[in-house]
Amino acid sequence: MRNSARRRFLAAAIVAGTMLAPGTQAAGVFTQNRFCAAPVTVCREHLRGASSTAALIVNAGNANAGTGEQGLADARATCAAAASLLDCNADAVLPFSTGVIMEPLPLDRIVAALPACRDRLAEAGWHAAVKAIMTTDTVPKGASRRVTVEGVPITVTGIAKGAGMIAPNMATLLAFIATDAPIDRGLLAELTTEIADSSFNRITIDGDTSTNDSFVVMSSGCAPLDRIGGHDDPRLPPIRQALAAVASELAQAIVRDGEGATKFIAISIEGGRDVSECDRVARTIAQSPLVKTAFFASDPNLGRIVCAIGNAGLSDLDSRGVSFWLDDVRVVEAGGRAASYREEDGKRVMAKPEIGIRVALGRGTARATVWTCDFSHDYVRINADYRS
Amino acid sequence: MRNSARRRFLAAAIVAGTMLAPGTQAAGVFTQNRFCAAPVTVCREHLRGASSTAALIVNAGNANAGTGEQGLADARATCAAAASLLDCNADAVLPFSTGVIMEPLPLDRIVAALPACRDRLAEAGWHAAVKAIMTTDTVPKGASRRVTVEGVPITVTGIAKGAGMIAPNMATLLAFIATDAPIDRGLLAELTTEIADSSFNRITIDGDTSTNDSFVVMSSGCAPLDRIGGHDDPRLPPIRQALAAVASELAQAIVRDGEGATKFIAISIEGGRDVSECDRVARTIAQSPLVKTAFFASDPNLGRIVCAIGNAGLSDLDSRGVSFWLDDVRVVEAGGRAASYREEDGKRVMAKPEIGIRVALGRGTARATVWTCDFSHDYVRINADYRS
Repeated sequence: MRNSARRRFLAAAIVAGTMLAPGTQAAGVFTQNRFCAAPVTVCREHLRGASSTAALIVNAGNANAGTGEQGLADARATCAAAASLLDCNADAVLPFSTGVIMEPLPLDRIVAALPACRDRLAEAGWHAAVKAIMTTDTVPKGASRRVTVEGVPITVTGIAKGAGMIAPNMATLLAFIATDAPIDRGLLAELTTEIADSSFNRITIDGDTSTNDSFVVMSSGCAPLDRIGGHDDPRLPPIRQALAAVASELAQAIVRDGEGATKFIAISIEGGRDVSECDRVARTIAQSPLVKTAFFASDPNLGRIVCAIGNAGLSDLDSRGVSFWLDDVRVVEAGGRAASYREEDGKRVMAKPEIGIRVALGRGTARATVWTCDFSHDYVRINADYRS
Repeated sequence: MRNSARRRFLAAAIVAGTMLAPGTQAAGVFTQNRFCAAPVTVCREHLRGASSTAALIVNAGNANAGTGEQGLADARATCAAAASLLDCNADAVLPFSTGVIMEPLPLDRIVAALPACRDRLAEAGWHAAVKAIMTTDTVPKGASRRVTVEGVPITVTGIAKGAGMIAPNMATLLAFIATDAPIDRGLLAELTTEIADSSFNRITIDGDTSTNDSFVVMSSGCAPLDRIGGHDDPRLPPIRQALAAVASELAQAIVRDGEGATKFIAISIEGGRDVSECDRVARTIAQSPLVKTAFFASDPNLGRIVCAIGNAGLSDLDSRGVSFWLDDVRVVEAGGRAASYREEDGKRVMAKPEIGIRVALGRGTARATVWTCDFSHDYVRINADYRS
């Protein structure tokens, strides 16, 4: 991974942090869960209040969620301790936690570990950081892109953790992307939302949304370019594309590392009246335990997909307009089994490690895609045995 | 089981049927799935059109769903064949199917089996019928109540099948309840909806809604009572209560026999602004794979329940007002872990075969209950291996 934006990472057994270039701007999107964790609340406050961001502090093992006023105080104390070590304002530090819910944060242990983290700050610290925040992840997840804008090389690098997206325990999704391109703060916030919608909001493993999910994009501004301030700036498209590509690669890496996952499944819906209904159909398929177990079994039990489509809450959907394909194999046309469909073709596709489902709703021009994985014995094993 | 309402059942390997007393009134509620099966469409038509209902024809093994015009023709042909044997109108026959989706109905085999079914009509045929329609069910499900109204004994008896409610294959929910109480047709329709809402609509095993789910209530009118025509009839309450009790017992039996289920869990939400939001919170808990695997593991990993509550889409829920209990053990108060909570108390409750979760939202007076089961290795085994 690259570190040309002069981001430095600290990593310790339970804490990983980043020291950012002076003046770094940051924007974030966070869980919609109403039991959002204390660090999420503090992160939002700090992003609103601070003129720039100096460091991220991440701990794994404890979510600091469902911890009430004490949890908020602990998240703030973590930031204050880091700020004092790094000589910056407390609101220039952003806190993140992932782990078990409703346990008090071991604040003393985190504060005690911070000096060692600072001492280990390193230009090439991305890898140590991403390994430090892994929980049920089986592989570290990083991605990087380089583009050239007006002759200036621009780097976009990101790391993420999460394997039971979106799971409330050790499987919280945390993702951090940084670039040296100088991007105006307001624009950065818009880009962050836009990029989340096309990457992390496109994935589902088990349909649960963690109390701690956080995605932050940082712009250090270290690249020698004038500040990019608006959507119509001609220098923006390659940077936006690089940001989206890094986010998309990280999001797909999370699904591929999904708890117990043996298959990667891309579900594309087209022909809907609007994106929202396409999204709903895609998620209903992606979250059906029956569809997911059929993929695990490589069984072309395609009535389960038909059933999920019918189940997506499109109350005026005419099933006779619906077709779908497994990769290149047409399975359903006009709401019934396609005349050309042969079970062995379905079996051939279902046996692959990466599978595409395409559904045409036949009532509009909107489309949406969701990425998911199958549902295996190991999902139950991991989630029934974890924690004890 | 009782048969005093003079209902007679036929049962064969793939077909089970009922011959009802002349003039029997029927009402039904059916799946909301947009890919509803052909027999569901025909059932709805027949219930609208016919002055009375003479027979139910049920087949297991093939859902006759996703089968287009041919499926509708096959369902109608089944009814016509039965009507000709039983000397009644075709629309006095109600068809039901449960099984694999998107396979053509083997009409010839069903029609060929009908004469044997008719020959086996028997007063005590409930048990043979419920066994004939079992699929992944491990036990037959029946319930009966007797009440006395103006000195007249009234019987309510029902049977049901379904084990992966709400699953699109062999696990479709079918439930049939009959009473000899004479109930006006319009009132019967209202009672059927009301009873479904307090029984079969209260259960979830895996969150999927089958293409074939059907619930029918029949009134033979054989009991020597004047017809009951309105909600304010003083004779109605005991009969309504008996109908609701039979439906509730059948619904709970389906959850207890859920695919791979090892535990029965009742989730009660109180203190909501309206029933709909209470229902949403209950279902989000009931359908979370993470909550369900924690119950399977007997692990009081209660953050998963907190996370599900926060995830139910109540965008203005104040988590500080939320409390919850596992049976009599208070786990969360004011949005955080209850001061009195001890892990061993949580473990003690989680180890039980029947568990109650009670959540107080602290923002109103509405309440709702949902019944569900845990999520085990066997759920994956059954659904990954089934069909092949």
